Amino acid sequence: MQQLIEKLIGPAFKNPYLDERHDGAVIKLNGAKLAFTTDSYVVHPLFFPGGDIGELAVNGTVNDLAMCGARPLFLSVALILEEGLPMETLWRVVRSMQQAAAQAGVQLVTGDTKVVDKGKGDGIFINTAGIGGIEHDAAISPRSVKPGDLILLNGDVGRHGIAIMAVREGLSFESEIESDCAPLAHLVLRLLDEGIEVHCLRDLTRGGLSSALNEIAQTASVGVAIDERRIPVRQDVQGACEILGLDPLYVANEGRFIAFVAPSDGERALQIMQSDPLGQDACLIGEVLGEPEGVVMLKSQIGANRILDMLSGEQLPRIC
Amino acid sequence: MQQLIEKLIGPAFKNPYLDERHDGAVIKLNGAKLAFTTDSYVVHPLFFPGGDIGELAVNGTVNDLAMCGARPLFLSVALILEEGLPMETLWRVVRSMQQAAAQAGVQLVTGDTKVVDKGKGDGIFINTAGIGGIEHDAAISPRSVKPGDLILLNGDVGRHGIAIMAVREGLSFESEIESDCAPLAHLVLRLLDEGIEVHCLRDLTRGGLSSALNEIAQTASVGVAIDERRIPVRQDVQGACEILGLDPLYVANEGRFIAFVAPSDGERALQIMQSDPLGQDACLIGEVLGEPEGVVMLKSQIGANRILDMLSGEQLPRIC
Repeated sequence: MQQLIEKLIGPAFKNPYLDERHDGAVIKLNGAKLAFTTDSYVVHPLFFPGGDIGELAVNGTVNDLAMCGARPLFLSVALILEEGLPMETLWRVVRSMQQAAAQAGVQLVTGDTKVVDKGKGDGIFINTAGIGGIEHDAAISPRSVKPGDLILLNGDVGRHGIAIMAVREGLSFESEIESDCAPLAHLVLRLLDEGIEVHCLRDLTRGGLSSALNEIAQTASVGVAIDERRIPVRQDVQGACEILGLDPLYVANEGRFIAFVAPSDGERALQIMQSDPLGQDACLIGEVLGEPEGVVMLKSQIGANRILDMLSGEQLPRIC
Repeated sequence: MQQLIEKLIGPAFKNPYLDERHDGAVIKLNGAKLAFTTDSYVVHPLFFPGGDIGELAVNGTVNDLAMCGARPLFLSVALILEEGLPMETLWRVVRSMQQAAAQAGVQLVTGDTKVVDKGKGDGIFINTAGIGGIEHDAAISPRSVKPGDLILLNGDVGRHGIAIMAVREGLSFESEIESDCAPLAHLVLRLLDEGIEVHCLRDLTRGGLSSALNEIAQTASVGVAIDERRIPVRQDVQGACEILGLDPLYVANEGRFIAFVAPSDGERALQIMQSDPLGQDACLIGEVLGEPEGVVMLKSQIGANRILDMLSGEQLPRIC
């Protein structure tokens, strides 16, 4: 259903902003350039190792703004609460949102609360919309991606999705797998402030690394070549994926992104990322090719080449 | 629960923007002054005489921006869909949003869709957040209200709430009562463009006219005197209210607002409103007094004075 709807709704609301297929819209208003984005959060369960729906709702929107190259400044918060929700649960989520906002340096400036009857919601749904300021002239967008661009990843993939699934399925591992939920704006702004020629940014949420790469390859009409051996996946995450029958490249993350940068800036960008706590394990995972257009080629662990497909079917529902 | 939560959540997210108790936040960004607001829409049923959830979600946010004295420009749209929702229903709502956006002159620039399992939602919930540009220096806010200000209302009250209740309760009246759902920005901007000294604007949604007046009286620490005989209520709405045991002054509207204007501009403001299709029945309903602070006094139909209280308990749940 998710896929069907996205295919239908996109064209229905067709306009130049949505055609960008970006994480948010870049708009101009009375001389200011700003980014605007929204997401609803329906994650189940509300609390999971490494985070909760409140932290996710702040960081998710902060990260979408960051992926537009914007400095996240203002967030709206709209809660849809199911009647009968324990007040203690609501408090935990509200406190978590406040902490996440303080950490990310954004202000929660406007809000709304609706209550629906019992059985017509599921505890708490949260929508956040965000406004960020854009202080540079770079056009950070899938359409700016060019053959030769290098693709950097800021750390290991698959943790958020596996943290959620482990709770849902009642799995326990030797060490608890925690979500990577984190605000990425600081790291992204460092790249821009240092003058790195960034062509495109994308966080690896629903559909994971694979979907992000495929979407960009299709929108930019370029080929993408990735080396699987360079993509960090923690051993416990790899093990959990094998048990659950999942591929970590398709699993959602909440603190990971890829940056497409000009080839001459690759090495410097990598150093900047690695010097940040959220990019310690950053690595160069691949490059952009002229063709085949819209295709992501993966050099696998055993050195064979295969096409990395778009995710067919929602691998993990209600992951964010 | 609604009331409890609003009392708790407001202080939890305390900051100067929320302290304004406005329909949206007025923020400054890279030299531009803009308004930012959000609302989730959970109205039940999704379709009702005079509108539907899609039209409501666009006009509601357009109106909140207008109440900040802003020109509504950009909207985000986030849908939470319950699995099993008929596609035809989704289409009707999407088309309705597009039409309402075109009518109000706003662009839907960014969006999100989430699907929740059957029984964990209720058809469609919609969140819209909006950005508007502010092109004047007036501080339109409850805190700008002064003794002597005149209070204007743009038309009859009570229709939206009664339209919803009639469908829910299966009531039928001689003539169908239709929601007053409409975009108010055009009319508000005309007042501002004509140089009317507008001190405060408020749309009469949840809690109706009475709640709007009480909130402003409390925030501005002023008294408000209203003449009930001047407040237009359609006869069929009055009749329906009597059947349902409701007071039309507490019933939600979606195309009505009050304007607090400087006394010298009252007559001219009224003429401007009456010359607009959405203000044909506009009238002067009262004035602001120095005291008693925080109290709304109503001169009733029979000429007696009584205090018009804040709504205690949600009169009509899921009305928007």
